Amino acid sequence: MLLKEIITDSNRLFQGEEVPEKYLFDEYVGHAKSVYGVALPKTKAEVVALVKFANQENLSIIARGAGTGLSGATAPVQNELIIDLHLMNQIIDLDLETMTLTVEPGVLLHEIQEYVESKGFFYPPDPGSKNSSIGGNIATNAGGMRAVKYGVTRDYVRQLDVVLATGEELTLGSVNIKNSSGYDLKDLFIGSEGTLGITTQIKLKVIPLPKASLSLVLAFPTLKESTDAVLTILQNGVDPTALEFFERETIQLSEKENGVLFPSQLGESYLLMTLDGDNMEVIQHRIELLKQSVQPHNVLEIISLDTPELEKTAWSLRDSLLTAVVNYTEQVTMDETVPINQLSTLYQYTKQLEAESGLSMISFGHAGDGNLHTCVARGSITDQQEWETKRDDVLTKMYGKIKALGGLPSAEHGIGIIKKPYLAKMTDPNYLTYMRKIKQVFDPDGRLNPTKVM
Amino acid sequence: MLLKEIITDSNRLFQGEEVPEKYLFDEYVGHAKSVYGVALPKTKAEVVALVKFANQENLSIIARGAGTGLSGATAPVQNELIIDLHLMNQIIDLDLETMTLTVEPGVLLHEIQEYVESKGFFYPPDPGSKNSSIGGNIATNAGGMRAVKYGVTRDYVRQLDVVLATGEELTLGSVNIKNSSGYDLKDLFIGSEGTLGITTQIKLKVIPLPKASLSLVLAFPTLKESTDAVLTILQNGVDPTALEFFERETIQLSEKENGVLFPSQLGESYLLMTLDGDNMEVIQHRIELLKQSVQPHNVLEIISLDTPELEKTAWSLRDSLLTAVVNYTEQVTMDETVPINQLSTLYQYTKQLEAESGLSMISFGHAGDGNLHTCVARGSITDQQEWETKRDDVLTKMYGKIKALGGLPSAEHGIGIIKKPYLAKMTDPNYLTYMRKIKQVFDPDGRLNPTKVM
Ligand SMILES: Cc1cc2nc3c(=O)[nH]c(=O)nc-3n(C[C@H](O)[C@H](O)[C@H](O)COP(=O)(O)OP(=O)(O)OC[C@H]3O[C@@H](n4cnc5c(N)ncnc54)[C@H](O)[C@@H]3O)c2cc1C
Ligand SMILES: Cc1cc2nc3c(=O)[nH]c(=O)nc-3n(C[C@H](O)[C@H](O)[C@H](O)COP(=O)(O)OP(=O)(O)OC[C@H]3O[C@@H](n4cnc5c(N)ncnc54)[C@H](O)[C@@H]3O)c2cc1C
Repeated sequence: MLLKEIITDSNRLFQGEEVPEKYLFDEYVGHAKSVYGVALPKTKAEVVALVKFANQENLSIIARGAGTGLSGATAPVQNELIIDLHLMNQIIDLDLETMTLTVEPGVLLHEIQEYVESKGFFYPPDPGSKNSSIGGNIATNAGGMRAVKYGVTRDYVRQLDVVLATGEELTLGSVNIKNSSGYDLKDLFIGSEGTLGITTQIKLKVIPLPKASLSLVLAFPTLKESTDAVLTILQNGVDPTALEFFERETIQLSEKENGVLFPSQLGESYLLMTLDGDNMEVIQHRIELLKQSVQPHNVLEIISLDTPELEKTAWSLRDSLLTAVVNYTEQVTMDETVPINQLSTLYQYTKQLEAESGLSMISFGHAGDGNLHTCVARGSITDQQEWETKRDDVLTKMYGKIKALGGLPSAEHGIGIIKKPYLAKMTDPNYLTYMRKIKQVFDPDGRLNPTKVM
Repeated sequence: MLLKEIITDSNRLFQGEEVPEKYLFDEYVGHAKSVYGVALPKTKAEVVALVKFANQENLSIIARGAGTGLSGATAPVQNELIIDLHLMNQIIDLDLETMTLTVEPGVLLHEIQEYVESKGFFYPPDPGSKNSSIGGNIATNAGGMRAVKYGVTRDYVRQLDVVLATGEELTLGSVNIKNSSGYDLKDLFIGSEGTLGITTQIKLKVIPLPKASLSLVLAFPTLKESTDAVLTILQNGVDPTALEFFERETIQLSEKENGVLFPSQLGESYLLMTLDGDNMEVIQHRIELLKQSVQPHNVLEIISLDTPELEKTAWSLRDSLLTAVVNYTEQVTMDETVPINQLSTLYQYTKQLEAESGLSMISFGHAGDGNLHTCVARGSITDQQEWETKRDDVLTKMYGKIKALGGLPSAEHGIGIIKKPYLAKMTDPNYLTYMRKIKQVFDPDGRLNPTKVM
């Protein structure tokens, strides 16, 4: 069979010179010279046929969602067939009784959020990249702002239909809420970055929309005081929906990028948080708990973002932090996580490396989860060789420290190709051996995204 | 090496005639004639040595926790070496900063609950069997009363140390809250019923203890009205911590067993629920939501269990339902789950089977999760052959119906040996093939609990 017999619309198939550049390009691993082709299926049957074709031609396959991934996981390296799922973008059904949303993998995160909220329901996972696809979110186990209260993508996946490397179809999980009926293969596929199977349909759990919510900004004199406050907030049961932190220096980049000011201009470090609940009284009660929790940490001011404008300003500045950093300087974004009580130690360490190396270490993150995004930035270094050497040295030291603190290389972006050498150094070799054996079970020829993760 | 060189205390090793009967007996699969032996390790090193011994002697191994399982998963069938972990029962550490409890697998559920509550924290999973071990809870992915709000055992496991069938040690998961760093093997081991590895140490997530809680009884004229109310309660965001249901007939068995009366004597069917939150005002607000939710379903009365005695009476009658049924009649306890909007249909079907077969079908369950425990009971049938034939026929019909409704054979007790034929009929054969291939990866000689699950 030929590719064009499988995908008969010419605008859903690209080969040779026709392949749009975005499929070759990845900001981390540079340009691949070429790929075998790019196919955009619209049905599961087409996905199966494409996989069978790849078997026939002995091609590797890369599944691609919206291409917003930050680990180079969709970057081609060896003449792959790219299966771009973004045209499989139907919202199939919202079943109000079981509170289950059925979607195709190419539906975008913001489409899901808007759709269910318009019906009075809530899909909690909230990565900054609202234009990412749900298929990609599942393949990376995406996290985002609300994980501290509501968990990550994994926690909202009820069922996955996958196409394996052999072309077989398998359904993992079900609409049942509890399950002790055999091995949990669904969770094995979540976060596997397109290396075990291609997701073609998804059933997600949704919950009733919280009836009230309020965001707040807290300013602290020092970074340490803000990270220490995080622990107290969590232990005291303030139960924040989101708990982000960043330094004044970092949010200033975003202020410049967006031409608006952050609601607080005091102190060195901020927490930006949301509380939600049944009504404003509950939230008021939690604000009291919050005040008690942060007083010992010398909070400078607590600002209620009680108008839609204030709230939007603060969160849009937060949402564009990464973009602001990227536009400001050449950098590598990390996605490290450490046990939450080590956050402060890790942050201090970035400051030490900054002083030692002359690089700029810009951090912000999902403080409530112990998940930091440290941007290792070129800053004022002009010599290319010097920058590359120092960058690699700092990355090696950072990952060494993270390992020593009991942390992991990726909290929510995945390993892809960029963090592969670090995963290898930070993980028990025997664990990696078992990962490879499991890959072998589902993909004996190593056809699915074979150069990624491990 | 000899067994007695590994376990040198004679009171921690039994062979031949010395093996206590409880290890041979299982209410479902009857008596095994003998086992190779029973060893009670106190350390991970002893577990490793025992597993290596089993390799040397080519023995199968059954890990055993507290032996409260309801699926025959610890029942020996073929000269196994039983590794009883109940002496590995140390609470090692409660880390307040990361809110992580480290325990050995033999610690009992009630010991965990009491320990963390005495420190102001909360371990939400709450199976009826407070004397079960945490190792067993993890191996069965135990559920219990509070799953509707807080999830199941799986949701509270941060890290597992396991010993594989080869004697290798592997650590799965970590204290980090988020993780997208490679395949999720931890969730594969949770619920695997001792077929993939032996858990020797566990890190559990605990949360702040809710500051207020209140239980309520709701009486309904008919069963259908109570199960319909469940859906409305969940959709309206009443957010119950527990949501149990049973018929008047069933709770009467428990009343007789315990010699006390249930707080409500009206109607045909009850919901027993708990609400928790920051304070009594929140709960009061949810009671208003609750009232609105149940009015359309013709609720007969709503009783606040607002004294410790009332609350204790209601819950202890609920907790002893299964024991009451077991003492009342010969029966088989099911643990089926269906999508929550099919609960009512399934329940009606049990009534139809009851009428057709002359058996007694006694059901109760975790209504908020779609998880029913249907007891297929002998009732007044005296002829042994007739009972067995009818029982098997009814079970076949029930599992057929559950499959047709999109349900599963086990929500929380596991498959063990009893539900193995039903899992085989209800599951895609290809899914079972992949389960077997994964078993092969971790346990190439099929040494760990080989006759169970699939
Ligand atoms: C500005 C910005 C902010 C971000 N903020 C966050 C954040 O807060 N939290 C967070 O977690 N991430 C964040 N990200 C990272 C990124 O958005 C996520 O990793 C996202 O889940 C990727 O989805 P995608 O559809 O773009 O996937 P892609 O980039 O297309 O692919 C990512 C991986 O998923 C696989 N994949 C995609 N679709 C499928 C499928 N159907 N079946 C099998 N495998 C598939 C690919 O093979 C690849 O391994 C951010 C990115 C940007 C650019
Ligand atoms: C009255 C009563 C009420 C119950 N209520 C509930 C309920 O509400 N919810 C619920 O989910 N269950 C309930 N159960 C079932 C039972 O208590 C659970 O299945 C429990 O999790 C079993 O724990 P255990 O320590 O007794 O395990 P065991 O019965 O000893 O073993 C169960 C399984 O776990 C494996 N296992 C045990 N320890 C380990 C280990 N360290 N490593 C690897 N594998 C191991 C065994 O091999 C076996 O497969 C109830 C049981 C009774 C008798």
